[in-house]
This record gives sequence, C-alpha cells and structure tokens, in this order.
Amino acid sequence: MHARSTPERRPMDVFDDRRPSKMSNDTTGLSYRDAGVDVEAADAFVDRIAAHTKSTHGAVDVLKKTAYAGLVRAPIADMSNPLIAATCDGVGTKLLVARQVGWFEGLGQDLVAMNVNDLLPAAARPLLFLDYLAVGKLDPAVMEQIVAGIASACRESSCALIGGETAEMPGVYAPDDFDLAGFAVGIVDEDRVPDPKALKPDDVILGLPSAGVHSNGLSLARKALFERGGYTVDSNLEVFDVSLGREVLTPTRLYVRDVMDFLVHSKFTAAAHITGGGLLGRLEKLAVDGIRLHVDPTTYSRPEIFNVIQKAGDVSDEDMARTFNLGLGFCIVVDAETAAEQLARPNNNWLKVGHVAAGEKGVELGFARS
Amino acid sequence: MHARSTPERRPMDVFDDRRPSKMSNDTTGLSYRDAGVDVEAADAFVDRIAAHTKSTHGAVDVLKKTAYAGLVRAPIADMSNPLIAATCDGVGTKLLVARQVGWFEGLGQDLVAMNVNDLLPAAARPLLFLDYLAVGKLDPAVMEQIVAGIASACRESSCALIGGETAEMPGVYAPDDFDLAGFAVGIVDEDRVPDPKALKPDDVILGLPSAGVHSNGLSLARKALFERGGYTVDSNLEVFDVSLGREVLTPTRLYVRDVMDFLVHSKFTAAAHITGGGLLGRLEKLAVDGIRLHVDPTTYSRPEIFNVIQKAGDVSDEDMARTFNLGLGFCIVVDAETAAEQLARPNNNWLKVGHVAAGEKGVELGFARS
Repeated sequence: MHARSTPERRPMDVFDDRRPSKMSNDTTGLSYRDAGVDVEAADAFVDRIAAHTKSTHGAVDVLKKTAYAGLVRAPIADMSNPLIAATCDGVGTKLLVARQVGWFEGLGQDLVAMNVNDLLPAAARPLLFLDYLAVGKLDPAVMEQIVAGIASACRESSCALIGGETAEMPGVYAPDDFDLAGFAVGIVDEDRVPDPKALKPDDVILGLPSAGVHSNGLSLARKALFERGGYTVDSNLEVFDVSLGREVLTPTRLYVRDVMDFLVHSKFTAAAHITGGGLLGRLEKLAVDGIRLHVDPTTYSRPEIFNVIQKAGDVSDEDMARTFNLGLGFCIVVDAETAAEQLARPNNNWLKVGHVAAGEKGVELGFARS
Repeated sequence: MHARSTPERRPMDVFDDRRPSKMSNDTTGLSYRDAGVDVEAADAFVDRIAAHTKSTHGAVDVLKKTAYAGLVRAPIADMSNPLIAATCDGVGTKLLVARQVGWFEGLGQDLVAMNVNDLLPAAARPLLFLDYLAVGKLDPAVMEQIVAGIASACRESSCALIGGETAEMPGVYAPDDFDLAGFAVGIVDEDRVPDPKALKPDDVILGLPSAGVHSNGLSLARKALFERGGYTVDSNLEVFDVSLGREVLTPTRLYVRDVMDFLVHSKFTAAAHITGGGLLGRLEKLAVDGIRLHVDPTTYSRPEIFNVIQKAGDVSDEDMARTFNLGLGFCIVVDAETAAEQLARPNNNWLKVGHVAAGEKGVELGFARS
C-alpha cells in the first residue's frame, strides 16, 4: 500500500507494490491494480515532484546510498557536543479551509514552518525534512502544489527535503480527503542551547511579526468566521485585498533565517514559537518564579484577521490571547546590550516588543494577562 | 488545534490551545471548548502515556531542554564521518483491519518497525522516534493501546520515543477514524554504509523470518480475503490459532537487534527490508549487471496466511512475490566466510536462504523470477 520514497524517486520507486505485475496475464486473479490504485497517475506524480525535491539539496550534504532512508552528513565540524533535535507537526484543520478555497500552495509552507520553527527555540539549525501525505485518491496536480510549497519553504530554510511518504488509502480517506504531517531534524551544539532559567529583570523581548493566524487556532477561527459570523471563504471584506478564505490561508511565516542570522552574532536566553496556547500561553511558559514578561501592544501590528475573528465569534481577549499569535510569531529574550546591537543591524527584522521585570510569575500583554 | 508534545508531557502541554480559558466567564462568546474538543479526555490521555514514553529513554541520552523539539545527544564518539539517516512511514490500511477487529495493540509495533527497519539497510543505528496520530475523536483507551505498542517497540529497538503529535481533527476524520504515521532518525559512520555494487558471485544471502504480512500489501490481502474470499475478520480457519483478522494483524517483526548484533562483528554488502515491492521486487533492487540472486524456497517457512490469501484471491505467484514478503522480512548479502561465522554464532536468528551467482541481472525465487 505504501508509496516508498527515495531521494531520487519520490514518493515511490519502481518496486513499489502499486506497480502491477509485468508478467501476470491472469485476468481473473487479483492483482494490486485491482485494489484500485491508479499507477499512471502515481508515476506522473513522481515525475512532477522529483525536481522540487532536488531543488532543496543545496545547503545540506545529501547522500544517496539507500533506497530506504535518506542520509545527510552531520555538519558537526565545530561542535563539541552535538545534539540532534527533532519535531513532528501537521497543519491541522487549515487544510479544510484550503479545500474549501481550492488553494493548496500555502499548505506546504505551513507544514514546513510549523516544524522548522519549532527547532529554533533550542537554537537548532534545521537539516532535513520529511513529509507524510495521506490521500483518498491521488490528485497529482493538487499534490504537486503542496510539494512545491514544501520544497520552496525548505529552500528558504536551508533544509533538505530528503523524502517522505505518500500513502493512497481509499478505505481510510474519502477521494478528496487528505492529511499532511511533517518531521524536521536539526542539529545544535549543546552549549548553544538556551537556558530559560537565566531570565532576569531588564532583559528585552524581541519579536518577529506573524503573517496572520498561521496554523494554530483554526478550529476556533473557522467556527467564529464561518458558523457564528456567517461568512464564507468567498466573503470579500473591505479590510482584505483577497477573499476571507484566502486571507486565512496566508502561509505561516518561516523564522529560520532571522533566527540563524541572529545566532551568528549572539545568543538568546529563551525563545518561543507562538503556536498552540497563543501569545499568552507561549510566553507564560518562559516566565520563572519572580519574573514577569511585559509585552507592549503598541510595538507590533495586530493583523486585521484577528479583529474579524474576535468580533465574529464574540471571543474574549483572554481566549484570543490563549489561541492566536495576535501578530507576533516568534519571540526571544535577550539582555539589553544584545537587543540594542541586534536592532542596529542592517536588514534587522526584529522588533523590540517588551521587557522582563521582577514581579509575580506571569505575562502582561496590555489587554490580557496571566 | 494541534496537540503539542514535549518529552515530559505528551502529546500536549498545559498551554495547548485545547485548554479553555481559565478566566473567561463569557458564556455567549466562542472559546476553544466550543470547537468541540474534550479537554478532560485529552488530559487523561496525557497521564496515561507519559510513563510509556519515558520507558523508552534508557538506551539514548534524551535531553529535556525545550518545549518545542526533542533533543538527544548524538553518539558520535567513535565516528569519523557521522551521517544522519531518517525515514517516514505509516501503517497503511492495516489500521482498517485493526478497527474491524477492535485490536490496536499491534499497530504501534507495526509503525515503529516500518520505520526503524528502514534505517537498517544503511547500517544506521536507530536513535529516536516520533509519531503522528490524527483522530476524529480522541478515545484515550484505544490511543493508549497504540502508544503502549509504540513504546514497547521503541524499547526493543533501543530507540527513544521523544515526542509526537496527536491531532484531534473532527472535521477531517470521522469520530472513529484515525491515521498513524511515524518518523525515525538513526546515525551511522559513513564507512559503515554498505556499497551494494560490491556484490559478487558466491556471496551468501542471509534472511530473517517475517511474522506474516507485516504492513505491506494489505489492500490486496483485504480484497482477497474479505471480498473475493468471502471471509470476515472473525472467520476461524483451521490453520490459525486465532481469528483471521487477528492473524492478519500479527505485528511487523523488529529487525534492529538481529542486524545490530550482526554489525558488531561484521559488515554486509547489501540489505533489503522486504516491504513494498515484495520479496521479488526488493531483492531485484539489489541485483547489478551480471549478478543474479538465487533464493531457495525450501530454506525458510512461508507463513500460512500467504497461502490463504493466494487461494482466496486467485493471485498469481508473481503478484504474490511482488506484493508480500512471503516469509522473509529482512535479507542481507555477505561473503561466504562472514555467513559461516554468523551462522555459527550462539543465538543466531539468521537463515542461509540463498546465494549470488554470475548471470542475467535479476532474482530467482524458485517459484517466481525476474
């Protein structure tokens, strides 16, 4: 059943069990073709995506020595205690919105971003990525859109797409149904891994803007917009240049470059990828006893989509802050000097969004707190 | 939407966006609870599986320094050119049979085996594993069965379960529906990676027995048994001690120990994990110009399930050999001396199942060929 992948031919090689026997002339006996998988479509898919996959192999030394596993050289030359970091995540119900809109290009970036961004709080450099794509019936055009997005996001993250699994499972998924999960591996020298316990008063919180809802809180967003609010994915709101559905689908921003650029010069004390738990919940996790994180809401932009969701669903500030990133997709805590240096650098994308103070353990967002 | 996992609390931590606001008293506004996720069930699940996860951390140095990614120390002390190997695979439609039978314990081992066994042809030692578990509605009892199976298989493979993702997606999956994918990372020194081009006449093929259909060819097996053959999962056949469904669900065998034990003493020239493509297709992939692999069908046992499938579906020998492992789950090619040494070792599980000869590039199984 499984489509097997190699760096060369993905997602299946010529020995995949989808391929019907070339010798059997028995028209009454069962063969794998009878189990209802379209071999031609599968082959076309392989051809379509090979170039995408290969395009990601620039920044990482990818070896091609086995038909079973992807192999990359561990870049440990300067490391004394290399650690391997790994993440696993999916895109959640954002794919339901994509299906309603019929636009799948962004999902690949969402998938990669949810995973590689999760490597960054450990200061780990992304190395490789694999995807799991399960479908009821393979639609090569749609799947190519997704893989193209994955490859593009991998290139932007200097991360090699070394394989994956495309499973066509007519009995598990309806023809148009699919699911999408990803896995990323990174590497970091142990002495570079931040120690959040070192947080101290007068430290500065630097943040990177988000592009919208990213891939978290979609169930609440969908319920608020498309049930309570009475909108459809095709609704055109004055505040957006695109349809509401397309606005929601804005891909999750990739933070690898900004974080890796920062790490060339400095270290951070703690970092948060603002995902499940929202801005409040994720920053809360950084607070330690006697330490309070203060974020100034005037220092960053709150994307309009959050106002539309909040109004449509009559969602409390607290629930918004515990569900969505509200405009900040990634935050780090650094000492004041490091912050000043970073903010003065050319092409700096970091914003000074808050500070650390002595106080009750918790977070202050200006409109919500813990 | 996403359940986020850490080594400590898996699959979600206390800041997961499933957790409803503790401050909101607004009963008309939407909260995440309204999006229909059962927080109590999710919390119970976390408690149930924490011990399973931790039980796998014996053989690998797992660090607990980030809430986003799992971190393990790379065991590279004796390596000159460490390579990182990664695999991704699911259990395919075997989970449909599990659902029909209502027995889920074996799926975890299937998932781990499909992945860690795929690391072995590169001679890579499994290090870590992550799972992706997507469900319509979380049933903690069922999911615990699966995670317990994953943990047990990880322990047997000296591989740390360092996290995963449990996504509850009511809009994507029906309540009882779920999917399961896995991801394994291993490590190997470059000079240990076999070079299959070195295959030569008089080399010996050693094989390890399979436990049955494992996790490949399930679509053909299901069609043959439950459509053409008229059997149900409850059918009791004289040749089996358990029901037909339960027999099909026999977990995929783990080959990590046998291969790692072998590698302590020797190297192999080439190896095949017998998955998609079947015994014929997978061995075919090892053949090079002028080299023919001969397997003697009298040297290993063909599990009875294959005879039942073949008869029920009137499947040709060729299709059987290109779909199923037929009794051999893992094969290596070694020189004659190495083979003799291995076969003489105490607790040896390898069988001498064939040899390599000069001839037309291809494979000879005794009953099917290429």
